[in-house]
Amino acid sequence: MDRVLVDMDEVIADTTAAMRNWYQSQYGGDIDYKMMLSGKSLIMGFPPEHQARVRQQLFEPGFFRHLPVMEDSQDVLEEMNRKYEIYIVSQATEFPNSLKEKYDWLMENFPFFTWHQLVLCGDKKLMTADFMIDDHARHLEHFKGKPYLFTAGHNLDEHRFDRLDSWKDVANKFL
Amino acid sequence: MDRVLVDMDEVIADTTAAMRNWYQSQYGGDIDYKMMLSGKSLIMGFPPEHQARVRQQLFEPGFFRHLPVMEDSQDVLEEMNRKYEIYIVSQATEFPNSLKEKYDWLMENFPFFTWHQLVLCGDKKLMTADFMIDDHARHLEHFKGKPYLFTAGHNLDEHRFDRLDSWKDVANKFL
Repeated sequence: MDRVLVDMDEVIADTTAAMRNWYQSQYGGDIDYKMMLSGKSLIMGFPPEHQARVRQQLFEPGFFRHLPVMEDSQDVLEEMNRKYEIYIVSQATEFPNSLKEKYDWLMENFPFFTWHQLVLCGDKKLMTADFMIDDHARHLEHFKGKPYLFTAGHNLDEHRFDRLDSWKDVANKFL
Repeated sequence: MDRVLVDMDEVIADTTAAMRNWYQSQYGGDIDYKMMLSGKSLIMGFPPEHQARVRQQLFEPGFFRHLPVMEDSQDVLEEMNRKYEIYIVSQATEFPNSLKEKYDWLMENFPFFTWHQLVLCGDKKLMTADFMIDDHARHLEHFKGKPYLFTAGHNLDEHRFDRLDSWKDVANKFL
């Protein structure tokens, strides 16, 4: 079975939507997608004077526990899980409070996965697999298998990798 | 720089000592090292009628937060950290409450490591490196680099791998 590494934030979990909702409730403003793009990060899409507070939100207990699930990701991954060796790999150790929350979130929303299939790490360059699906070019750059960039607001100007724009797109490629 | 994967439980953290102390305080008995050996697991060293409760202890909040540090591991790893690319890799997702506790424990006791150097996973077979130090043969079996078995009560009859009996032994080999 081919092994596929699948990222969490902005691939199966809609971290941008959650942050945008939180920001609107706190400050009433919205994301500037052009700024996010030039900064290659979600946080850079918010006004400079609020970026430290936005970043702080990633460390708050609870933030990662209730993220919305990306459309179609559950159905597609449930089917892929029968045909591939799937691992959900998140660079999560930067945010210690996210660790158990990411486990709980995955088990609740993707109950067909087991604890064997989750990796919470500080660096993805250790992992080997046949395919990797990630929204960050920095994780794909050193990957030895076939990399796919999952489209996100911050990566629209990245042209080095084949793209997957949605989970329907993933299904077309992998199923 | 060569990359070295180092396990946590029973390699840098004395999980056996903590469990033994807890067991003695609860039941007044002791580990049977011969049973542990035949079962290839820490838990099998306790009387059969208490094994379910012993295993439950691994899921309790707090258990992994205050494990004793293995002798000499701090000094040796601090020096190795200058000469090797070190990752601390723990098959921790089986025990969700351990995730943040393992992060906090590592940062407190090995403050020269950063969050980039920790991997909490469900399966170590994804990881590539030049060397791996682990007390479980199951993690070493499929490793493509050079495996070292770190001696623990449960692995004394395992003869397939070169052994490291202590952190002094690790220093002699790696420094």
